[in-house]
Amino acid sequence: MPELFTVQTPPDAWAMFARAFTPQVKIERIATVDALDRVLAERLMSPQDLPEFPRSTVDGYAVVAADTYGASPGLPAFLTVIGEVSMGQAATMSVGVGEAVLVHTGGMIPPGADAVVMVENTQQAGADAIEVMQPVSEGQSVILVGEDIRKGAAVLEPGRRLRPQDLGGLLALGITEIAVAAPPRVGIVSTGDEVVAPDQPVGPGQVRDINTATLGALARQAGGEAISYGIIPDDRAALEATAKRAHAECDIVVFSAGSSVSYRDMTADVIAGLGAPGVLVHGVSVKPGKPTILAVAGGKPVFGLPGNPVSAMVIFELFITPTISLLLGAASRRQTRVRARLARNIASDTGREDFVQVRLETRDGEVWAVPVFGKSNLIYTLVNAEGTVKIALDSNGVRAGEWVEVVLY
Amino acid sequence: MPELFTVQTPPDAWAMFARAFTPQVKIERIATVDALDRVLAERLMSPQDLPEFPRSTVDGYAVVAADTYGASPGLPAFLTVIGEVSMGQAATMSVGVGEAVLVHTGGMIPPGADAVVMVENTQQAGADAIEVMQPVSEGQSVILVGEDIRKGAAVLEPGRRLRPQDLGGLLALGITEIAVAAPPRVGIVSTGDEVVAPDQPVGPGQVRDINTATLGALARQAGGEAISYGIIPDDRAALEATAKRAHAECDIVVFSAGSSVSYRDMTADVIAGLGAPGVLVHGVSVKPGKPTILAVAGGKPVFGLPGNPVSAMVIFELFITPTISLLLGAASRRQTRVRARLARNIASDTGREDFVQVRLETRDGEVWAVPVFGKSNLIYTLVNAEGTVKIALDSNGVRAGEWVEVVLY
Repeated sequence: MPELFTVQTPPDAWAMFARAFTPQVKIERIATVDALDRVLAERLMSPQDLPEFPRSTVDGYAVVAADTYGASPGLPAFLTVIGEVSMGQAATMSVGVGEAVLVHTGGMIPPGADAVVMVENTQQAGADAIEVMQPVSEGQSVILVGEDIRKGAAVLEPGRRLRPQDLGGLLALGITEIAVAAPPRVGIVSTGDEVVAPDQPVGPGQVRDINTATLGALARQAGGEAISYGIIPDDRAALEATAKRAHAECDIVVFSAGSSVSYRDMTADVIAGLGAPGVLVHGVSVKPGKPTILAVAGGKPVFGLPGNPVSAMVIFELFITPTISLLLGAASRRQTRVRARLARNIASDTGREDFVQVRLETRDGEVWAVPVFGKSNLIYTLVNAEGTVKIALDSNGVRAGEWVEVVLY
Repeated sequence: MPELFTVQTPPDAWAMFARAFTPQVKIERIATVDALDRVLAERLMSPQDLPEFPRSTVDGYAVVAADTYGASPGLPAFLTVIGEVSMGQAATMSVGVGEAVLVHTGGMIPPGADAVVMVENTQQAGADAIEVMQPVSEGQSVILVGEDIRKGAAVLEPGRRLRPQDLGGLLALGITEIAVAAPPRVGIVSTGDEVVAPDQPVGPGQVRDINTATLGALARQAGGEAISYGIIPDDRAALEATAKRAHAECDIVVFSAGSSVSYRDMTADVIAGLGAPGVLVHGVSVKPGKPTILAVAGGKPVFGLPGNPVSAMVIFELFITPTISLLLGAASRRQTRVRARLARNIASDTGREDFVQVRLETRDGEVWAVPVFGKSNLIYTLVNAEGTVKIALDSNGVRAGEWVEVVLY
C-alpha cells in the first residue's frame, strides 16, 4: 500500500483531503446560558426592537428639549414636574410643553418627552417644579427604540464561536435556547506493544501512553469530544476490530500509530479497509511528522499520526484541528501569534515545512524565540516550549537574529 | 458613604484593593487526564529517569559505534546479528564487538550497544549477518536514560495553567493525580426592579437580565465557577439577605448594581455591612465604568459593577479576572493583542483610562481598529466588537491613523 504514495507538501495533502471530505455539521439545541465557546448553527434575526421603549441613560427629568433651549444658571427654564416613572414600570403619563417627569437610569421615558436633563443640571423650584440650568438637545441621554438592535436585523451568523457578550446579546432578546454544532466525536486509538496505560506498572522496554491524553486534550481544545479506545497491541485483528468500532461510533478517527515501520504499515492497511476512498495521503513533507496518513472512509476523516509526541502534536494542529473546525461549521480557532527574533540558526530543506518548538525570552526589551532542541520522541521538548516556529516550504532555513512568527500553544 | 471616597485611577484602585486582600489558593486533587486548563498547585519532581532504558529512535541495528568507523558502501563493516529486541520487551542479550541486534523505533537498546544503524544503511549478508554501509557515531539514534527528564528534576512549577502536552509530560512519569487550584466560586447578584430573567415575559419598562450570563461566562473563562444568585429587586432587606448568603458561600461576590444613583448607594451600603475592611474604592477614573466599588469583607473580595453591560465587562476584565487569577495562584490569563491603526480620532480626558470597543478591518493589507460607537448601555456594542483599545491615563486622545494595541476578547 504505502509504496503507491508519494510524500505530499502540507498544502497539497490538505487539498487532497479536503476534496474527498464533505463535512456535515451535526446540530443540537442547548440553553443559551450554557453556550460559551460553542459554535452557533443557525442564523438568528432579532424578534423585537431592543429596547422596545425609549430609556434614559441618566438620572434626571424627561422633557421636551425645545423647552430648555437657551436655559442657563442665570436664566433657567422653569418646568412643572407632573410625576415619576418608577424602575420597571411603564410611564403612565405623557409630557407636554412646560412639563417634566422624573426618570431613573435605564427607566422608561414617557411619551411626549424627547430628551432627559441630568438631575445635576436642575434645581428644585418648589414641591412640583424644577429649574433647568442647561439646555438639552433632542435625543440627549435617551436610548431610542431599536437603538441597540432593530427587529428583524441579523443578530449573529452561523459559525460564530460564542463569547460572553454574545450570550448576553441573545438573552437580551429572550433567545434562551439556540442551535449549536454538536462537538465532533474524535476517537483516539493508541497502538503499540510497548505502550501501557499511565496508571499501570511499567516494565523494562515499556513506556506509558501519552498520546491518548495529549491528543484528547487537543481535540477538546478544538471544540471536539475525545473518546479513548485504549491501547491496542501490535495485532492486526485487534486493531481492525477497534478501528471498525471507533469508525462506527465517531466522526473522526485518529490512530496514534506505533513508530516502527511495521506498525505504520499495519495502521495504513487497517485504515484502507475502513471504507472508500480510503487512504489519500501517506507521507507529508513536514518535520517532524512525515509518516502521516490522511484518509476519508465512508465519509469520515481518519488520520494516522506518528507515535512520537512532538510529531503527533504538530500533525494534530496541522490537519485535525482544522477538520474539527469544518465539522463545527466554524472558522479555525484563533491562534495567538507573537513576533520574535530567532536565537539560533535553523537549517531546513526546501520542499519541507519544519516546525521548531521554541520558548520565548526577553532580552533588552526584545522578544527572542529560543529553539527547544530535543528529539521529537521527547515529551519534555513540548512541555518546555511555549510555541512553534514554522520554517516555510520554500525556505532552506532561518538565520539567528531574523524575525519569525511564533504560534503560541 | 460614597461622599467619603474620591475617584481613584485604575492602578491606584488595584493597589488599594491588593493591599487589603490576601489570596488563599484552595486545593483539590484530580486526575491528571482531566486537568486541561487547570492551574497546578504543587511542585512536582520527576520520580524517575525518562526514559528508564536507552531507546532507539529508528528501525535498525544496535551496534558498538566504533565497529562502523570508516564503513562505506565500498568497504562495509560486517557484523553478526545475535538477536532482536521485540517492542515492549527487555533486551535479554548484550552487544559485543562485531555484533549487532535488530531493534525497532522506540524499542530498548541492549547493553553494550551505544548507537543504532538505520536499516536503510545496512544490507543482509547471509541469515545472521549484515553489512553496514555508513558509520554511526556514539549515541546516534539513541535516546539516553534520563534524556527526556532526569529523576529528581523539577517537572512543572505551581501556578502553571496546564496544556495538552503538560498532561502528557505528567502521565509519562506515571503521575496520574495532581493537586490543582479549586476554581474560585464567583457569586453574581443582579439587582434592579426593572430586570427580569431572560426566560420570563417582559413588560413595558422592563429589561431582560444580561449580566448574570455575561459575567458568569467571563468568570468561567477566567478559571472560576459562576454561581448565580438571581435578580434582587430594589429592596434593602432582600439585597442584604442575598449579599450575606453569597458572601458566606462564595470566594468572590459580584454585584451587578442597578445603574441609578439610589441602587448604587444601596449596593455600597450593603457591601459595607459585609465585614471589615469593607469598601476600599468607590469610583474609578475609567470610561465606561466609573461607578465601580472595590471592597474586601472578611477576607473576601466584593465588587460592585455598574449595571450597564459594557461597563460591567470592562470592569470585570480590569479587576475581577486578575482577582480570580490570584485565587488560582496563577499568572493572569494570556491576552491576545494585535496592533492596528485607529480608524477615527478618539478624544479622552487626561487622568482617565478610556476603553473603546473596536472591530478590526483589513484595508490594503493593514489592520485598522474601527471604534464601535454606541452607548455603554447597549449590549450590541460588545457583540459587534472584537476587542478593546485602552486610551492611557495620561493621554488626551488618539488621532486617526495612529497605531494602537487591541486586546481581543
